[in-house]
Amino acid sequence: MLIETLSTFPDMYTSVMGSSMMRRAQDKGIITFKAHDLRDWTHDRHRTTDDDPYGGGDGLVMKCEPIFEAFDSLTDHLPVPPYTIFLAPHGEPFNDALACELAREERLLFICGHYEGIDERTYQLADRIISLGDYVLTSGELASMVVIDAVVRKLPGVLGAETGAENESFADGLLEYPQYTRPAVFRGEEVPAVLLSGDHGKVARWRREQSLARTARMRPDLLDHADLSAADREFLKSLSNGEGV
Amino acid sequence: MLIETLSTFPDMYTSVMGSSMMRRAQDKGIITFKAHDLRDWTHDRHRTTDDDPYGGGDGLVMKCEPIFEAFDSLTDHLPVPPYTIFLAPHGEPFNDALACELAREERLLFICGHYEGIDERTYQLADRIISLGDYVLTSGELASMVVIDAVVRKLPGVLGAETGAENESFADGLLEYPQYTRPAVFRGEEVPAVLLSGDHGKVARWRREQSLARTARMRPDLLDHADLSAADREFLKSLSNGEGV
Repeated sequence: MLIETLSTFPDMYTSVMGSSMMRRAQDKGIITFKAHDLRDWTHDRHRTTDDDPYGGGDGLVMKCEPIFEAFDSLTDHLPVPPYTIFLAPHGEPFNDALACELAREERLLFICGHYEGIDERTYQLADRIISLGDYVLTSGELASMVVIDAVVRKLPGVLGAETGAENESFADGLLEYPQYTRPAVFRGEEVPAVLLSGDHGKVARWRREQSLARTARMRPDLLDHADLSAADREFLKSLSNGEGV
Repeated sequence: MLIETLSTFPDMYTSVMGSSMMRRAQDKGIITFKAHDLRDWTHDRHRTTDDDPYGGGDGLVMKCEPIFEAFDSLTDHLPVPPYTIFLAPHGEPFNDALACELAREERLLFICGHYEGIDERTYQLADRIISLGDYVLTSGELASMVVIDAVVRKLPGVLGAETGAENESFADGLLEYPQYTRPAVFRGEEVPAVLLSGDHGKVARWRREQSLARTARMRPDLLDHADLSAADREFLKSLSNGEGV
């Protein structure tokens, strides 16, 4: 997968894209990453990418011209344009299903605003406008890194033995069960006995029930779309009857 | 505000914390940032911070010992411990109101997992467990940067003239109105005439209606908690009657 970004602070990507999983995904040739500097498509001495908003108000708005010019120069020669993503608070909420969908693309281009916003007309370049959540970030670069991390970890071969992506939160619409590692007792706190029992069936059942109970407690809204068995529903009913875990 | 992080990839913060708003906030002395290396509190030759999960399964789980030891050494001498935050999918959803709340703290400590997860017992150190959204990130460092960006931009004196934080999305529970800057016509697309009218009252009304219409279209769930006037409600009613904008 080729992942490109277009923004005014391309150096912001260096340490995140150069570490850990992201670096490994590049070393293995699974992704290629390029951070383009939007200022390379400006023509004035100050390399201006923003200007005052029409209608007044504080803040600067990113201009159309360099963005469209950059887009044209990055994509004109391609048989198929890259799948183009903007990050903005009014976009569709990002989630695990969307990360899986984006992981199927061959080429992603993130166009990142900064500060106040971006001229509305640039959104016609978007295949997708995505919001990370109900908060505002100054750095569109940072927002794009979050999407890139969530997508790249879905690509085959990226996660090594240190992570198991199939059991994690949201994979089946539930929050993940609690995890424990050595020591079995730490400062008086014990690991739940079932995890030390060696009984795989019991462990699996305990984990499923912990996932269900945690989701019911923290994020009951997720249960509406979760993949639940008859036994899961029975268990959730016992919870709401106060039988509890 | 003192912002500290504790993680296994402290260098991941370098370019984000060293650029743009984050750098300016530090240059102005509004925040001090320190990224601590969790491996400094390990005692074996491999500086081990994770281990196999009890109960089996793929993935490694971050161990209690170095995290508690680091926490003690960073906080034991303090009269008041820092406000301690973990990022995890089962946490409470991060939003603008929570960013405002965290912006009132004097000292934040982020404890960041990586890969599969973190021993459940470490969460007893948490004042808050926060989720960025319904997706999974490999890098807890990256998740913490998102919270740090959203919080730091709320601190007095951080945002300069290039951003107006009071009109942005979520400040009044609505998505922000569209923004435009020069040129007035770009590739045949015109800026809405009202924004060129010089009539401040009309501009303000148009922007409010655009915010309302966009929120109703993209995120109707936000309207339940938005700060709406009688005129806003009237306008929303006209929208749902198909009178449109």
